[in-house]
Amino acid sequence: MINRQAVRHRPLSEFAYAPAEYCLTIRLQAARNNLKRCTLFYGDRVDPHPQVRFRPQNMEKVASDDYFDYYETTINSEYDRVCYYFSLESAKETLYLYADIMAKTIPTERSEFYQYPFIRREEISDVPAWLKKAVVYNIFPDSFADSARNLSCQAQSFFDQKTGQTLHSRLGGTIRGIIANIDYITELGFNCLYLNPIFTAAEYHRYDLLDYYHVSPNLGTDADFRELVQAVHARGMHIIIDGVFNHCSWYFFAFDDVVKNGENSRYKDWFYNLQFPVRRPESGEKPQYSCFAYEPKMPKLNSSNPEVRNYFLDVCRYWIEEFDVDGWRLDVANELDKDFWRAFRKTAKKAKSDSVLIAEIWEDAACWLQGDMFDSTMNYDFRRHCRDFFASGKIDAAEFNSRLIKMNWRYPFPIVQGQLNLLDSHDVSRFRSLCICPERFYLAEVFLFTAVGVPCVFYGDELGVQGEDEYSWRGAMPWDKAIIDDRNFFQHLIRIRQNNECLVSGSFQVLDYSPAGNFVFARARGRKKVVVALNVSACVNEQFVNLPSEPPIFSYGYNQDEHTMMPYAYAIWEIEEDE
Amino acid sequence: MINRQAVRHRPLSEFAYAPAEYCLTIRLQAARNNLKRCTLFYGDRVDPHPQVRFRPQNMEKVASDDYFDYYETTINSEYDRVCYYFSLESAKETLYLYADIMAKTIPTERSEFYQYPFIRREEISDVPAWLKKAVVYNIFPDSFADSARNLSCQAQSFFDQKTGQTLHSRLGGTIRGIIANIDYITELGFNCLYLNPIFTAAEYHRYDLLDYYHVSPNLGTDADFRELVQAVHARGMHIIIDGVFNHCSWYFFAFDDVVKNGENSRYKDWFYNLQFPVRRPESGEKPQYSCFAYEPKMPKLNSSNPEVRNYFLDVCRYWIEEFDVDGWRLDVANELDKDFWRAFRKTAKKAKSDSVLIAEIWEDAACWLQGDMFDSTMNYDFRRHCRDFFASGKIDAAEFNSRLIKMNWRYPFPIVQGQLNLLDSHDVSRFRSLCICPERFYLAEVFLFTAVGVPCVFYGDELGVQGEDEYSWRGAMPWDKAIIDDRNFFQHLIRIRQNNECLVSGSFQVLDYSPAGNFVFARARGRKKVVVALNVSACVNEQFVNLPSEPPIFSYGYNQDEHTMMPYAYAIWEIEEDE
Repeated sequence: MINRQAVRHRPLSEFAYAPAEYCLTIRLQAARNNLKRCTLFYGDRVDPHPQVRFRPQNMEKVASDDYFDYYETTINSEYDRVCYYFSLESAKETLYLYADIMAKTIPTERSEFYQYPFIRREEISDVPAWLKKAVVYNIFPDSFADSARNLSCQAQSFFDQKTGQTLHSRLGGTIRGIIANIDYITELGFNCLYLNPIFTAAEYHRYDLLDYYHVSPNLGTDADFRELVQAVHARGMHIIIDGVFNHCSWYFFAFDDVVKNGENSRYKDWFYNLQFPVRRPESGEKPQYSCFAYEPKMPKLNSSNPEVRNYFLDVCRYWIEEFDVDGWRLDVANELDKDFWRAFRKTAKKAKSDSVLIAEIWEDAACWLQGDMFDSTMNYDFRRHCRDFFASGKIDAAEFNSRLIKMNWRYPFPIVQGQLNLLDSHDVSRFRSLCICPERFYLAEVFLFTAVGVPCVFYGDELGVQGEDEYSWRGAMPWDKAIIDDRNFFQHLIRIRQNNECLVSGSFQVLDYSPAGNFVFARARGRKKVVVALNVSACVNEQFVNLPSEPPIFSYGYNQDEHTMMPYAYAIWEIEEDE
Repeated sequence: MINRQAVRHRPLSEFAYAPAEYCLTIRLQAARNNLKRCTLFYGDRVDPHPQVRFRPQNMEKVASDDYFDYYETTINSEYDRVCYYFSLESAKETLYLYADIMAKTIPTERSEFYQYPFIRREEISDVPAWLKKAVVYNIFPDSFADSARNLSCQAQSFFDQKTGQTLHSRLGGTIRGIIANIDYITELGFNCLYLNPIFTAAEYHRYDLLDYYHVSPNLGTDADFRELVQAVHARGMHIIIDGVFNHCSWYFFAFDDVVKNGENSRYKDWFYNLQFPVRRPESGEKPQYSCFAYEPKMPKLNSSNPEVRNYFLDVCRYWIEEFDVDGWRLDVANELDKDFWRAFRKTAKKAKSDSVLIAEIWEDAACWLQGDMFDSTMNYDFRRHCRDFFASGKIDAAEFNSRLIKMNWRYPFPIVQGQLNLLDSHDVSRFRSLCICPERFYLAEVFLFTAVGVPCVFYGDELGVQGEDEYSWRGAMPWDKAIIDDRNFFQHLIRIRQNNECLVSGSFQVLDYSPAGNFVFARARGRKKVVVALNVSACVNEQFVNLPSEPPIFSYGYNQDEHTMMPYAYAIWEIEEDE
């Protein structure tokens, strides 16, 4: 019997998307080991013949976990309008699946099949090519550098004439400090910078913005930043900045005006749920407006107000056109209205057609990744699964495999290739600090650079920065003395990533895993393949079978003769198949 | 054991939507009879306490079919930012479901739960109130009337000076004919007209448009149409017109210009996939441009070209602002780019805030019904399921129940309430012609007026029009002599619909069904309820139990004393529960 409860397909979703014109990728889930064959039948939905002439194509089982088999196929045809159905065959029966109906026969009316109405060239599922090839270095500006290989680590207060506010820094990092260390970053191999906020703000983290049109004076000048962008571009790199449009500082000019002028303020509709009388509440007093979380110092902007929208669209345009930045990382993106983001995307892409927009959305972001808003999101799920498997060992390889399938299947594959994979950031504990033994960190990093998606490294991971509280994980770049010097390790991994297109756009296939902790997968593209074997266990692991016979290009603790892996060993192979 | 393969929930979808501010409806599917309890735990996702303080709420089993139980609950809280998870309890075990992970324990980090990031008031799942209350009469203008209770049925050719084209009609219906028969329509009880295309076009169906700014001269004048709209509004009714923006006639001015001027035409980018040299192809010759299906006389417009977009946005605005129409039915809506429709929605809603947009999409339309494009779609799935159950008896009551659940669950419930349910239209066989015996037609109509969604009747169904080919199902309104006079029947049903708010917005609950063909359901809202019993069988059916004891308000073949239903009997009760 076919397990009807387990079968899943959804039209016009990650189960049916167009990676290119005249091309569709179609997916289906079924119960594990339940089907002996799954076939896609597809045809021209406007076939001039009375009955649509369907063509069969075998669906390949591309992944399996404890409960499901995952089938996929990609069709290339001359059709831009496709209808389709599936035949599902078990040992005992054959069922047809069309438009969410499972039946013994197929229908006669063509509209009763699943439909991909029109593969429009404007709506192909993809992201800018450079994003997929990016290897990102994420700098928290206050904590990085103030000159070549140096950071003063001096907290400072700076009175800003323009906003009338005192600006705070904690460790004294500057834009010039970043410029002075670009060579350090390029030597490691990174080809993209992502900077946490750099605009004028009162707190050291700069998420409480006072002025969206200027670099914070305690961080540098607008000219400094222009020089940084030029230096980055001169090296063939890209740069992404942080956009905080959900909220602002309670001393942002518009909020200040509302506090001063009350209902007479022309900015009274700029804030979400604002009610009069409004003032800056005392500690413990409930604010008369929505906030970032419940932080009264950060009133929530009303992004659906056309004036607010236009103000921030101009900010978007300004930094791309005037400073040539290559994209935005967008703070608290899932709390603004979607129409704001649609307009934001248009503005950004008009200013620079291959600019990228990366949303801070920690969870499933499918509804924001349909091509009308963001290119990518910060993939905190990647971190979670790595934390539970590599760092803490809380889940086993089978569960890790299952979670990876869900992660890699939740968006169209070209979108997954553009996800910003991260192990840590300014908002979470350093991954190294979560590892129950130091070796586990390296396994996770190997995975970061060989998995599907864009690797993003938080500054200082390569020098051993640790921390489980905010001040620590945003700690000073240890220029004087590396806590642990892993620069060679990162350099190696980045080089491997950069030199293998299959790590950018290749398929992801788990080859083997077991409770013993072995986890082996391949990234394949055309005749090239990268194979990665990880021993996520404290034991010498002899369960690795069928590993490549040639020597790995990068490894630790791998015994090639015996095919055994020492505790926490890893190995990476590059393979080119014969024609 | 909990059947893990059957459990389904999807954040930010029809499984988790906001029907109002500070309100969320949450749904979950599980294997039939698998859970003894399902509980939602929800909390403030920005709870200032270190751990989110979750509140439990029981998920109610609201539907069941052969394979699944369907759970739902609606929470009203003070939160606009919600995180949540489920506990699933079977006899043997308890599992927690959060962010697509099923586990024995819940996680510690708040971002690991399911999230509804922010219930924004701009993004509530709903449609204009009047649409939900509408009962729609769909007129195919050529076939309806040319004066009071009359249609000439004379085909005519009319040379149109303005476009230089000959315009064809088949039966001679006019706008004045509709005006002259409004009283006929209102007496039946309808409160909304939907007209198939009325703008200048060459063919009798008028889907091949020559001029989007004028009523077709062989149908009437612009002034006639203005008078019609005024007459409709004077009666408290609404009127929806047909918008054909996917394609135009190959004599539309822009295409004509391209044919005449070739690459020098300023309209050369107005058409999708157009290649030079271009001409109007001879019969059998492949056109050098995309078409509606493969019809060379209807070249496909390039809706993503800003000029094309602006042209048709103005058409949208024009008919709403200048003629006061209340909405558009949009032809082949799933083949235009989504950005076009987003702009179209903004234009329409700006011109009239409660105007409605109904897309011609025959299949699952979830991605078009997210609040940024259409309010509704023509629900051909409704017709299919009714055809298979009521007309042909191809499926049994269990399968019908299962399909109804899928149909009612595929969008947020307020969206389902706005779906344009239809049994026939200008594009399909008359439903009556599909019924294997005449009585089955009435069961389907009873269902149409008591199911969830907006009933839409194709002109003449009330007078017995039949037909399984295009000319027949678009046949002349039989003013002279009804083929079958069902006006009283429709009048009764419409009155019941209009007088019971629970038929508009009440829940839908199947109370009973069996292979014998009984199908009983209720629509409930507050203390009021409508119960409907249908005997979809040729036999006297005694399997009806627990029917209301009071007499029905409308029935056929129902024996109240014995609670038996004659072949194809139906009965409708209105019930008001005691406080």
